[in-house]
Parts: sequence; C-alpha cells; structure tokens
Amino acid sequence: MEGAHPEIMRRLNEINLDKTEGYGIDPYSAHAMELIREACQAPKAEVRFLVGGTQTNAVVIDSMLRFNEGIIAPQTGHINVHEAGAIEACGHKVIPAKAVLGKIDLDALETYLETFTEELNAVGWEHYVVPRAIYVSMSTELGTLYSLAELTRLRGLCDRFNLYLYIDGARLGYALAAPACDVTLPDVARLADVFYIGGTKVGALFGEAVVVTNPAIQVTRGHIKGRGAMLAKGWLLGVQFETLFTDGLYFKIARNAVMQALKLRDGLVEKGYEIYLDSPTNQQFVVMPTKRLETLSQKVGYDVICTLDAQNTVIRFCTSWATTDAQLAHLISCL
Amino acid sequence: MEGAHPEIMRRLNEINLDKTEGYGIDPYSAHAMELIREACQAPKAEVRFLVGGTQTNAVVIDSMLRFNEGIIAPQTGHINVHEAGAIEACGHKVIPAKAVLGKIDLDALETYLETFTEELNAVGWEHYVVPRAIYVSMSTELGTLYSLAELTRLRGLCDRFNLYLYIDGARLGYALAAPACDVTLPDVARLADVFYIGGTKVGALFGEAVVVTNPAIQVTRGHIKGRGAMLAKGWLLGVQFETLFTDGLYFKIARNAVMQALKLRDGLVEKGYEIYLDSPTNQQFVVMPTKRLETLSQKVGYDVICTLDAQNTVIRFCTSWATTDAQLAHLISCL
Amino acid sequence: MEGAHPEIMRRLNEINLDKTEGYGIDPYSAHAMELIREACQAPKAEVRFLVGGTQTNAVVIDSMLRFNEGIIAPQTGHINVHEAGAIEACGHKVIPAKAVLGKIDLDALETYLETFTEELNAVGWEHYVVPRAIYVSMSTELGTLYSLAELTRLRGLCDRFNLYLYIDGARLGYALAAPACDVTLPDVARLADVFYIGGTKVGALFGEAVVVTNPAIQVTRGHIKGRGAMLAKGWLLGVQFETLFTDGLYFKIARNAVMQALKLRDGLVEKGYEIYLDSPTNQQFVVMPTKRLETLSQKVGYDVICTLDAQNTVIRFCTSWATTDAQLAHLISCL
Amino acid sequence: MEGAHPEIMRRLNEINLDKTEGYGIDPYSAHAMELIREACQAPKAEVRFLVGGTQTNAVVIDSMLRFNEGIIAPQTGHINVHEAGAIEACGHKVIPAKAVLGKIDLDALETYLETFTEELNAVGWEHYVVPRAIYVSMSTELGTLYSLAELTRLRGLCDRFNLYLYIDGARLGYALAAPACDVTLPDVARLADVFYIGGTKVGALFGEAVVVTNPAIQVTRGHIKGRGAMLAKGWLLGVQFETLFTDGLYFKIARNAVMQALKLRDGLVEKGYEIYLDSPTNQQFVVMPTKRLETLSQKVGYDVICTLDAQNTVIRFCTSWATTDAQLAHLISCL
Repeated sequence: MEGAHPEIMRRLNEINLDKTEGYGIDPYSAHAMELIREACQAPKAEVRFLVGGTQTNAVVIDSMLRFNEGIIAPQTGHINVHEAGAIEACGHKVIPAKAVLGKIDLDALETYLETFTEELNAVGWEHYVVPRAIYVSMSTELGTLYSLAELTRLRGLCDRFNLYLYIDGARLGYALAAPACDVTLPDVARLADVFYIGGTKVGALFGEAVVVTNPAIQVTRGHIKGRGAMLAKGWLLGVQFETLFTDGLYFKIARNAVMQALKLRDGLVEKGYEIYLDSPTNQQFVVMPTKRLETLSQKVGYDVICTLDAQNTVIRFCTSWATTDAQLAHLISCL
Repeated sequence: MEGAHPEIMRRLNEINLDKTEGYGIDPYSAHAMELIREACQAPKAEVRFLVGGTQTNAVVIDSMLRFNEGIIAPQTGHINVHEAGAIEACGHKVIPAKAVLGKIDLDALETYLETFTEELNAVGWEHYVVPRAIYVSMSTELGTLYSLAELTRLRGLCDRFNLYLYIDGARLGYALAAPACDVTLPDVARLADVFYIGGTKVGALFGEAVVVTNPAIQVTRGHIKGRGAMLAKGWLLGVQFETLFTDGLYFKIARNAVMQALKLRDGLVEKGYEIYLDSPTNQQFVVMPTKRLETLSQKVGYDVICTLDAQNTVIRFCTSWATTDAQLAHLISCL
Repeated sequence: MEGAHPEIMRRLNEINLDKTEGYGIDPYSAHAMELIREACQAPKAEVRFLVGGTQTNAVVIDSMLRFNEGIIAPQTGHINVHEAGAIEACGHKVIPAKAVLGKIDLDALETYLETFTEELNAVGWEHYVVPRAIYVSMSTELGTLYSLAELTRLRGLCDRFNLYLYIDGARLGYALAAPACDVTLPDVARLADVFYIGGTKVGALFGEAVVVTNPAIQVTRGHIKGRGAMLAKGWLLGVQFETLFTDGLYFKIARNAVMQALKLRDGLVEKGYEIYLDSPTNQQFVVMPTKRLETLSQKVGYDVICTLDAQNTVIRFCTSWATTDAQLAHLISCL
Repeated sequence: MEGAHPEIMRRLNEINLDKTEGYGIDPYSAHAMELIREACQAPKAEVRFLVGGTQTNAVVIDSMLRFNEGIIAPQTGHINVHEAGAIEACGHKVIPAKAVLGKIDLDALETYLETFTEELNAVGWEHYVVPRAIYVSMSTELGTLYSLAELTRLRGLCDRFNLYLYIDGARLGYALAAPACDVTLPDVARLADVFYIGGTKVGALFGEAVVVTNPAIQVTRGHIKGRGAMLAKGWLLGVQFETLFTDGLYFKIARNAVMQALKLRDGLVEKGYEIYLDSPTNQQFVVMPTKRLETLSQKVGYDVICTLDAQNTVIRFCTSWATTDAQLAHLISCL
C-alpha cells in the first residue's frame, strides 16, 4: 500500500494551516457531499464521511437493524470473515449465504428466503434472527463483479422479502472502472438503500463516503460519534473526497489500476501461469509454485491467499492508481 | 408441555409460606448444589441456577469469550438457529460448523480447525473472530447422541486448539437415560469445561443448573443478575433441583420419557410410517402425509419440523415423565 | 420473602398436568392480558409477561432508546443502583437526576432539561447522550409516592421535551392501595407510555406484566426471547396474572400489606422509635440502636439500609399479603 | 483547529509513495513505539496507536472492565458528557464522581469508596455496578491540572480499593508543558495503569498513543480492529508519533501553546476581563458581555461554554503550536 494520490496530498498541504471547524461540519465536507450526490444522481441522498471500512460497516449495519434482526452476507463477505466480529460486537448476527467466487448465489438465496420465511411463519419469528438486510461487496473480496441484471434481481428479492440492500464499496471505483462492468454509480445509488464509496483503497489516505438513499435508514451523527467513527479534524475527509470527485479523479485513479491489472493478467498468462479465478478488476489471483515464493517475496509485494495443493499456492497482486508500466514490467520480469 | 412433576409441586406447596432469603442464597439452593456436585462426581464444581435455556446459554457463553472470540456450534445448534440472536446480542459470533443429524461433524471440524489456525497465523488473528469454545447439545435438537468416544475426541480437539467445551444439557436427562447412551453424568462433568443440566424440559416448572468444572471460567452472580437471569425468589430453583436430585428422580423422569418414546417409535414402524431420523431419545421424528395433519392436529399434539415433499411433512412427537401407556395407545390409534 | 398467594398456588396445582402451548401464546395468558387491559381502561394496550424486574427494565428500556439516547432516572432509582448495570449492558446510559426521598425532584428536572436542551442545541446533540425517556418507580424504592399532580407534571415535561415516561411498578400494588395515594391504575396507564405491574413482590411466585400504551414503543416477542426473558412454560405467568386480576385479588393483597405496615408504623412510634422517613406504603424505615441489631436479627427479618451515626442504624421492615396481626404483634413485642 | 505541524506534513509527503505494510505493523510504528517507551521510561510498556479520542477511550475501558464493573469519572469528564455514550455502548457504566474545576474531588472520592465498599459487602456486590477503574484527564476538560501529590494519592486509592487508574491524555502535552505542572511523563507512566498521549490536539492530523504499563490490561489488536479503530494505512499514525517524539517536538509544540495562552490570559486581565477559572494550560476561559459576542465572532474563533447570567457568557480560547504573537496581538486588539 502507498499513501494518497498526489493531488490529494497537494490539497491537504495547501489548507493545512487554515483554521477549520471540526467534526465534519466544514465547507469542504459540505462541498464533497454535494459532488457525491451529483455523481450518484441522488440529490436527496444523505452522505456521511467515516475513516475506515470496518467502522463504516458496523455503524451502517447497526443503523439498519433492530433487535433479533440480522444481515445476510456471502460466506466470504468481509463482514463475515475479516472484521474481527465488528458486527456481532454491535449485537447483530451475520447470516452467511452460499457464495461463488465472492458473489452471493442468487438462486440459493431465493430458495433460502422462501423456505426460511415459511419456517418463520410456521414456528414464530420471535425464536429466530430475522433477515432484514443483504450485504454484498462491489467489487467483491475476490475481485469479481455483479452485473446490472444481478443487482436488479437482488433488488427485487429485497423488495419481495422486505430487506435493505447494502453495498460495501471499499473497491467500488475498481468495479465501475472495469471494462467488464455494466453498472454505473447512479445504478448503485438507485438499487441500494445504502452503500459506501471507498476512499482508502482508491487514492485517499483514508476515508469512506456512506451514501444513504433510503430515508428510512438514519445513519446519525450521534451514532457515528458514539462508535468512535467521527474524525475530530473532519475536514481531512471532506477535502479528500472533494478532490476525488473533482474532474473525475476517482474514476481516473480506478481506471489506471484496472488497466494495469488486466495487463498484468495478460503477462501472467503469457508466461504460462494459471490464473486462479477470473477477476475483471484490480485484484489478480494466480497459482504460484510454493517453492518460488521465498525468492519472489524479496522482490515484489503480494498476499498469500491459500495453499492450493502440495506444490502450489494462490497469491494475489493488487494494482492501484500508482502502478506504472515500469513496475509492471519489473514484476513480470521477476516471475 | 405440562407443568412440573408432582413431587416438585408437592415440595413447592409445602414451603410456600415459609420466609426464605431471596436471590439464590437460601439453604435449598445450597443443598441442591451439593447434590449436583455429588451426582457429577465434581466436588469442586461451581453450580448456578438460572431460569431458562436461552439466558443460560447467553450468560455462560458471554462468560467464556473475550472480544473477537467466537463459539463454534453445529449449523443446527440451538444457539445458532432458535434463540433470536441472544449470543450476538451479547457481542459474540456463533461460528457455524457442519452438522449431521444435529451432531457436529468431527472430521470436518478437525480439518476446519487446522486450516483456519494456519490462516490466522498467516494473515494475523486480529482480523478474524477467533474460535475460543465449542458448543454441542446432548441430546441434540434432533434427539441424537454423542458417544463417549466422540465426546472424548471433541475434548481432545479442545485441548489441542485451546478451546472450551460447553455442553447444552437442556435435554441431558433424556440423553443419559437412553439405552443407546454410553456416557454418564460424571463423564459429562469430566469432559466439558462447563455444561448445564436442564430442568425445564425434564420435570421442573423451569430452571437450568449450570455446572462449571473449569475454574478459568467464572459465571459470576453479578453477570447473572445484570443479564436479568437471577430469580428474586431463587429458592424456587433450589427446591426444584433438590427434588430432582433426591432419590434419582431426575433419571427416573427421563427414563420414563425415553422408554415411552421408543415404544412410540415401534408403534409407528408397525403402522408402516417412515421414521425420518433415528432418534434414541424422547423426540421422535416421523414422515406424515400432509393431508392427514388437519385431522391429526385436532386429536394429538406434535410439532411440524419441515415439509419433506409435495405430499409429506416431517413432524415430531415429544414424550415426557408424564407420558402414560394410555396416552401412547391413544396416539397410535389416531395414526 | 414467601412464595405465592394460596389462590395462585391452587390454580397452578390445578392445571399442572394439562398440556398447554408454550412461550406465552396460551389461553391463560391471553385472558390475563384482557383482564389487565380492562383494569387499566386501556383497551388497545399491548401486554407482555416477563419473569423478573431487572430483565423487564432492560428489555423495555432497550425497546425505547436508540443509539446515543439515554434514560433519566432518580439517583436512587433501581436501574441506577441495584441492577448490576443491566441497562448499560444493553448499551444505554442511565442519566442520574436529583432525588428526594426516592422521588425525582421535578423542579430540578425541569431546570436540567431546559439547560441541557440549550447546550445540546449550542454544541451539537451528536456529542452527548440525549435524554429520550424518564424512569420513575411507583411506589419508589423508599416507599414514597408520586401524587397525581406530580405525575401529571412529569407527563407535561415529557410532552414538552419529547420524552417517554416509563413507570417501574414492581411495587405498584402497594402504591395504589395506600390511603395516601390519589392515583389509580387507569391514571398510570393514561400518563405513562409504558409501565409494568409487579407480580413478584405482590403475591406471585414471579412475573411482571408490561403494559405498553404508546404504540410508538414496540416491546417485541423477539426482543423478549433474545434477551432470555421469555419463559418456556409461559402459561405460568398467564395463570398467575389471571388469578391476580380476577375478583380484585391484586388489590386485596396490596391493601392488607399496606394496612399492616401502617399499623406497624403506629406501633413503632408508640414504642418511641424514630421513623426514618415517612412511607405511606408497605415498606417502613426506622432508626434502631445498632447494638440492638444482633439480638433483633435472631427474632425477626429486616434489611439494613444504612448506618445513620455512631449509635444508630436505619433498618427496613416490609409487609406483604401474608402478614398477619399475630406476626405484627410478635414483631412489636420484640422491639 | 488547524492541520498538522509542518514537520509532520513534511514527513507524510516524503514517504507518501513508498509501499508500506498496513494495519500498524510497519517500521515507522515500531520505531515510534520505541521512542514513546523511552520518553516514558517504561521499557516494557505496550504501545498502541488509534485514530481518535472517543474510540481510544472506548477500547481501553472495554479492555479493563468485565461484566457489572464500572469506571469512576469526574462528573465533567469527557467520557461522562461528551462522547455520545461510547462507553455505555460497549456495555459499561460511567460512575460520576464529584468534580471541582474539572478535577475529581479526592476527599469525596475516598469517602464514596469507603461507604460504597461497605454497602457492597453488606448487600452483595452482585446487585451493583462495581467500580473497577478511575478515569481522569490531564489536563482536564477545563484546562486544570492534577499535582504530583494528587496523582500519587489517587494511585494510593486505586491500590487500596483494587482499581485501575486510566489517564486520558488528549491534552497531555499541554499539561506537561505548563510551568505550574510538577508531573513528568515518566510520572504519568509510573502512576497510571494505562494512559494515552494525545496527538490530535497536539500537532498531529490525528492519532492517540495508548501506553499500557500494567500487563494485566490487554488492549489487543483484535479488539482495536473489531471496534473499527485500526487504521488500514497504520503507518500514518506511526510516522506522526515518530516525528512528535523525535527531538522533543511534542513538548516544543505544547510549550508554545501554553506560553501563548498565558500571555493571552495576562492580556485579558490587563484589559479588565474577568477570568472565569484559573487555567494554567492552553485553554483560557473568560467572562464576556453577551452583547459583544456577535461582533467578536466575526473576527476571532472561540467556544461558548455557558451562559453566566443575564448579561454575561463564558467563552473559551484555545491556543496551539501554531499560535503566533501576531495572532495574539490581533485577538487582544479585538477585545
């Protein structure tokens, strides 16, 4: 990981000595909210800036659920596996659903909702955790994408079963920038009840922008404050999102990352490596002989995902706005 | 469901007008604790009386886990499906494990623990919910039993992976009384770190006796009180368990129920019904033509478990200490 | 403390062997709810039966408050001092208010609400715990009473400052039965948004009946279940409240206790003891020379309240439905 | 408020494009921890970096307390009034103690602890919230200081009553830099069980450094992560604290602020203003005619603290590392 896009650093330096009102009620934040509403074509949406993804998920989900209500997430969803129990620490169950390559299996979900609703009605809902929301990530933790048709179907299931749809957009930029993606930001805003636009992974030092389009969900400032998720110098968030949503910087950043990732994929294939799963975004998963890892780890950065078999390991490369052709060439030459 | 065994009612009536100290520090409770320690052959165990199963599970599990620790339970375990999110409401994740006929699949569990431990070590445990305890029910929600060999293997896994073993004994009496059961109460006390002996389902008006044999787990009176699980007239619990553990009443009650259940099973088989799953205890699951249910429900009590196919439904009959031969004969005649 | 009123025991014995549906959806509970709605002249009220006071307070208050909202309680209120942090364990702050003899000081409360509202508006409510409800006990923990004028003023403050009024009626019977009380049960139902009618302290083995008159507050069955406060054999609660609200038994029980308490007070005064505080209900507080306590404690039951000075201790006597003239005479003869 | 000290911005810019490991296990963080341990003369202390004060208080306090344990705080303490119920949201009661000018009244505290301990022993601790820790701020929310003698006495009370001492050091720099302060950083580390060194208010963009000197308290990385308080690009915290604790920058920053504040106080007195309370640190509280505020607010920044009487308001000026003589002169000229 690196820091922020140079344009963001430039702005942070520029206003560093200005006196600005704290806790997110500054003009930069107000302007950034306006820019985001415009980009989403959601003029009435409520926008909130938080520092990181885990706290964002916890506050948003805690805002949606009441007692003995839960949120359905794909088995591999970030809230189900990688957030140290943040949702349960707020008192709520994450209900795991069958996932395929990081995406919730919509057929299985529909069957589950039909069957479970019958059971709730037969036995009495008071004995169960009642599903009240669905969580999906876009792009997913495995770099995969929901198509517009799939998101639309998910929305339909939510309408039919009285569920909120929450989209974790930690990597939303990389999804929207992928050539294979037929979903736009206004689509996301229209189909989800609430979602967030990730800054941390897409050019900011830190920061996530929650967009609430369903007024039945109130992500209050008191809630954000009381969960320790309100930044004292809140304008740091406002300035970063203002910069990202000026002149389309957010999308440019994402596009570079995705384009470099796709080049990387081509390079890997050309060198004869097996691609572990087909990701159209900035994460690429590749099968690597385990014995090569020791040498490789001294030259390039990657994450170990899992042991595939006795000889092979799956590793992940992530590109970013900062990935250059030279870096790519170096990486491929090391393989 | 019926009320309490007549001997319990007799005792409750007998002392009804006595003035007794409240909140469980009465002599009946003290005596009952002593009787339970003896029956368990666990002279140093801490015994606590609570009112019902859900609050017992919540308080015990909340006592075992710290932040970002979770408890593994079979997918079908009561805490995972039937307690309205009571464990999550205390801030803890229930980690579902593969189950077969209500029992945790020990091979799958071992593989999961090995693999997940590797992942924790590789990625950093701070991002995950770390398993810290295992929950099993004896007998299970489906009437099935763990053998002594299986419980011993489970204990071994707990020792190897630094986990507590917690046994939900809501139906413990029916398990121990089953001819097919090779586990004794002292075995349970020796193998579990903490468990409870269910009263509500085995002859009491209400009440569960928690037995803590591992002193590292402290189920404190303050915790019980603050979770609303301390009965003001606590002696009502003490008197009931004193009665149940005098002259082996608890085991007699359970034996009658199990024997009648096995007779019922034979009667069902004889009449040509398909037994849905082979339960050696007081719950019997049978496949019934759905169209017969309307008539049947006016004559006898049962629970609907699930729809098997277009024509058939699985239903459950539960016997108890109060089930008589005449009732059985009537039930079978209705089928 | 003793058990239940004989009429309640008679009924529990009578139906003990009947098979009754569990979890509170039985006909006894339905009938008891109806009787309570009638007694309250609140035909649309929602009635719920829970086992004990602490769990009742926790579930009701958790149902009223959202994130960073709190409940105001007199400094000496049960939820602030005697429930082991049950409200905080559900995530909510108890905001202590000045109390005089167990009653919230209404002048001080009004000033506080005015001042604090200004502060919230000036600084931003998101940094504070915002009062959303007021908790009072009737009678209070010190046996004192709110007059109708005081409750009406409290209601007015609640309306003005957008607060719910919650009345803890663990001892409601003793309040309503006091000759000094000018409040009726329908008054309570009309003025409070939610309250409970205590059974545990007024003739039942256990049980509290929550009455919700404001439909904006939903005390759901799922919430009760998930907090471990739903009794499996729920009809035990229904039968007890059915009995208490048949032929005015609840009020007869309370009246006897209060009348005996007032006789006791007269006896104490006659013998020259100093009454510590003037209680018009079933609790009497008296100043006793500390050196007499050792002898006294072997003859009669009382609670130590506090050390008054080097020579004297304040103790409390509680009467009940079961207190007889003979017992009173014995007690006074011991003093 | 302004951003960060220029030296911090310089460093953040310098390493912005470096690839650094996330989640706080980077070399900058490790070095900063080492520098802090040295400055504290606490070679075995555990140091953790979090983003903001409210989340820091919540995580630290949640790490210290078990069920039905509470933390004593001065009535005016930040956790009791200004954090939107963050501590209660983690399930714990803040027990308010009498405060004078922001400082806990030690005589009153001692009496309370003695009396309450007696009550706990007499009635049974399980019914209460048991004090387990004491929270104080240094400097306090009103700019006042504890002397070394006072902190030592507080430590003694903690030892006697088995309490942890936790010092909120959001403004610790300004305390230590005050000429009137006789406490050093090693004193704080020696007397507290855990404390934090505030970065947000003392030259950083954001960040607080928790220092745990009592190994019985474990502020784990899993807890920090699960409360949403672990920064993905954790090195941003490490770099800032590394810079603050290199060449004594932290203390220089604080010294400038305090010196300017004292000059400001002299200027205010000279102009005839009444100083509301005598603060020896960077916050100055002054009585201002209310009618002057409208004009004043257009020229300089201040916070309204409270309405003093019909004509006057108490306002607060805060200085920082960035406050210059010219700014001071301008401010005084406006008054």
